[in-house]
Amino acid sequence: MKAALFATAVFMAPCITLADPLPSWGTSQSKDRIVAFVDAVTDPDNPDYVTPSDRIAVFDNDGTLWAEQPVYFQLTFAMDRLAELAAANPSILTSPTLEAAAKGELQTIAEGGHEALIEVLNASHSGISVEEFQASVTKWLDTARHPDTGLPYDQMTYQPMVELLRYLRDEGFRTYIVSGGGLHFMRVFAEDAYGVPPEQVLGTYTGTTYETADGTPTIIKAPGIAFVDDKEGKPINIERTLGRRPILAGGNSDGDFAMLEWTTAGHGPRLGILIHHTDAEREWAYDRESPIGKLVDGLNKGPDMGWVIVDMAQDWNRIYTGSE
Amino acid sequence: MKAALFATAVFMAPCITLADPLPSWGTSQSKDRIVAFVDAVTDPDNPDYVTPSDRIAVFDNDGTLWAEQPVYFQLTFAMDRLAELAAANPSILTSPTLEAAAKGELQTIAEGGHEALIEVLNASHSGISVEEFQASVTKWLDTARHPDTGLPYDQMTYQPMVELLRYLRDEGFRTYIVSGGGLHFMRVFAEDAYGVPPEQVLGTYTGTTYETADGTPTIIKAPGIAFVDDKEGKPINIERTLGRRPILAGGNSDGDFAMLEWTTAGHGPRLGILIHHTDAEREWAYDRESPIGKLVDGLNKGPDMGWVIVDMAQDWNRIYTGSE
Repeated sequence: MKAALFATAVFMAPCITLADPLPSWGTSQSKDRIVAFVDAVTDPDNPDYVTPSDRIAVFDNDGTLWAEQPVYFQLTFAMDRLAELAAANPSILTSPTLEAAAKGELQTIAEGGHEALIEVLNASHSGISVEEFQASVTKWLDTARHPDTGLPYDQMTYQPMVELLRYLRDEGFRTYIVSGGGLHFMRVFAEDAYGVPPEQVLGTYTGTTYETADGTPTIIKAPGIAFVDDKEGKPINIERTLGRRPILAGGNSDGDFAMLEWTTAGHGPRLGILIHHTDAEREWAYDRESPIGKLVDGLNKGPDMGWVIVDMAQDWNRIYTGSE
Repeated sequence: MKAALFATAVFMAPCITLADPLPSWGTSQSKDRIVAFVDAVTDPDNPDYVTPSDRIAVFDNDGTLWAEQPVYFQLTFAMDRLAELAAANPSILTSPTLEAAAKGELQTIAEGGHEALIEVLNASHSGISVEEFQASVTKWLDTARHPDTGLPYDQMTYQPMVELLRYLRDEGFRTYIVSGGGLHFMRVFAEDAYGVPPEQVLGTYTGTTYETADGTPTIIKAPGIAFVDDKEGKPINIERTLGRRPILAGGNSDGDFAMLEWTTAGHGPRLGILIHHTDAEREWAYDRESPIGKLVDGLNKGPDMGWVIVDMAQDWNRIYTGSE
């Protein structure tokens, strides 16, 4: 019996080592290039070897790690929260924009542009402590369902990307999220959904204030946006927060262009990855003309800069973590 | 021979385990309380046990991890750098303030207040890439010497605090610097001096811009101060950057009060540590009346809040890392 167990152990060890770390990625050049890059930077005998402390990988969230159609999920949360707050206290709907938002009238918000968005965000995201805000996000994730898929939003993460994050960490990388999405919003689910702890989530943020009025110090979300973590804001935020240039960056839109550009322009081995939304059947197909996740520069310049352009329809066997 | 080696190994193991991790701390209540706290939060059988991911310790830098007299070391750097830049190009000294700074006339800068300080910082800290700026700090640390001690500035770190940082890390803590000092300035020496990597350094920062004018993306330090990491700014910056409340905080001035207050007001075991500069012989003695490192609230309220007040003269066997 003992001998049999020992034989099993010996037999299984190489199986575990050789198991495909990216089973949801089909046989593709994209997968081969990612694996070749990771193999190179983790092999001490390879001239491209990178010491673990510099193995930093950064990823956009909306459209890169989870879906972003028909509208950024955080905007849906904001409108749902506004509706909930208004049900208890209708007087908070102090403008036609807020009334429309509470009714879920996306078109009105879209037409109102940046100003309308800020109004909705202020009414739904500020004036409460970070803890209260995050509790409301948790509750929303537990109960809200996506109109098209019927899935909880945090199950519309991309299974191939969840595998990629885990694979990178298993290979000594630290994985960061660097997203235009809200910092406090994303931290609620990033650890469970992606294995990314709060201190490795970078995002857009409202200001906060430190209040001790009731004797207990509390950090309160203020209105307005203090920092937009998009476009050039992404490399700026990474440099400010990490003080290191990543060696791998993944995104899906022109909002990620500067982050991939800065990452891949560094010395030594670098990898840029763009997720191209090509799968109208299983997800959504959009790029150059889309108001959300617009991708023009990345498609025009990315291939010449050596970036991996992932064709979702071709390269991924599976899309969502929450459905086969 | 083998038996002897084995016996030596067996004999040495417990010695290593039992070696005092804080040899530069004398026999004192301060040391006992710190060790008791660490023992409690790292013992799985203790009700105060804290899981490693939550073992976050934050420390101010100036006056807590290294000295800050007769003037913040970064101001000395700024004036030295200005003098160096002016030697090559005198036209950069466009005001009496800058002329005084380049001559090292501290009194003039002090009298000029915040405005004079910003002028000196802008002229010495902006308009160059982060890499160029940090190279100038490295060079300064290699060559500049403190007027009183004759030591390189990065050897005027406090040996007892360097030991404390290492001890905490050995016990599964992550150690962060959260200082009013400049983020890009401190990152140059934090890893060598304290074992704190760049992504665990939080500080005051200038704005930065992302430039690709010459075809190579570069992050440039802009004039002005974008965020002051002092007073309420400290808990705000910690929450924003880490998304967690530390369980241990160390400081030395009222600029650290909010950080210690927020840290120690959290649920579960918490420790606040204030370094009280009581040693006029080996260092400097200052607190309530000092323009630098003013400590009033901490002395008045800290003891009742359970904070450890470290008496440098009594509690430390040794002061600087760079001298016995």
